[in-house]
Amino acid sequence: MMSDQKFITQKEADDVEMGAQFAPKFDSAGLITCIVRDVETGEIVMVAHMNEDALAKTIATRIATYWSRSRAKLWVKGETSGHTQHVERLQVDCDQDVLLMSVRTDGTGANCHTGRKSCFYRDIALGGSPADATLSITGSDPLFDPKKVYK
Amino acid sequence: MMSDQKFITQKEADDVEMGAQFAPKFDSAGLITCIVRDVETGEIVMVAHMNEDALAKTIATRIATYWSRSRAKLWVKGETSGHTQHVERLQVDCDQDVLLMSVRTDGTGANCHTGRKSCFYRDIALGGSPADATLSITGSDPLFDPKKVYK
Repeated sequence: MMSDQKFITQKEADDVEMGAQFAPKFDSAGLITCIVRDVETGEIVMVAHMNEDALAKTIATRIATYWSRSRAKLWVKGETSGHTQHVERLQVDCDQDVLLMSVRTDGTGANCHTGRKSCFYRDIALGGSPADATLSITGSDPLFDPKKVYK
Repeated sequence: MMSDQKFITQKEADDVEMGAQFAPKFDSAGLITCIVRDVETGEIVMVAHMNEDALAKTIATRIATYWSRSRAKLWVKGETSGHTQHVERLQVDCDQDVLLMSVRTDGTGANCHTGRKSCFYRDIALGGSPADATLSITGSDPLFDPKKVYK
């Protein structure tokens, strides 16, 4: 195990698919995809990424912490907007390369930077060619004004 | 637009976050992440990837088609096991780099290659160090025997 390695690797794990060892698979950029779900409603509210440090911190503190790819730094969700996500449950998939996290969000309950509860506020039209696959807004209105929160 | 390009690019789109144009962002490998949800229960059942061809085919046919990274080919889910996924709804997130797809699955309703309904059948213990983050099986039993289905 490398000195800065926090989790065991998949090669070190006895049985990635059925074992009790958590051996998350980080991609070539050192990140794992995390799907975020509202613990009350089950609604999918966002998707973000974690590196080893973010994942270890999230597990230890039960406060959602990600790796911001745009800012290239650890990102404790809500540190600017107040929408801290409290982690109630964390699941992993069969090959341990995706996380599913159930959270309770502070403040207005918004999780999207557009002010909405969920980032998934648009539906894609089905049944046609790519040119026909237009979007329609199906999510609810923003819960806060991003211009007032993110300066 | 390149001759083999099916969807418009994000640079070509008027407004990626609020517009009506579907401009999916494929990563450096040409893939977009797709979260798959059971349309009846809302349960997250798997995560897979699509390239342009897989996404265009999924939209046109409403039958879930992915890009298999391990086999490096288009993968019509269920072609071996009979667990075809019928697409009832397709959503996209704010920056259009993740899809959320609601499906009705044929056969036993299993979506995981281990025979389970969902790939997320294990919970990670919270509150400790990475070494304490062991897994426990919380999902239900397999719905079919993978050894009999995948030869």
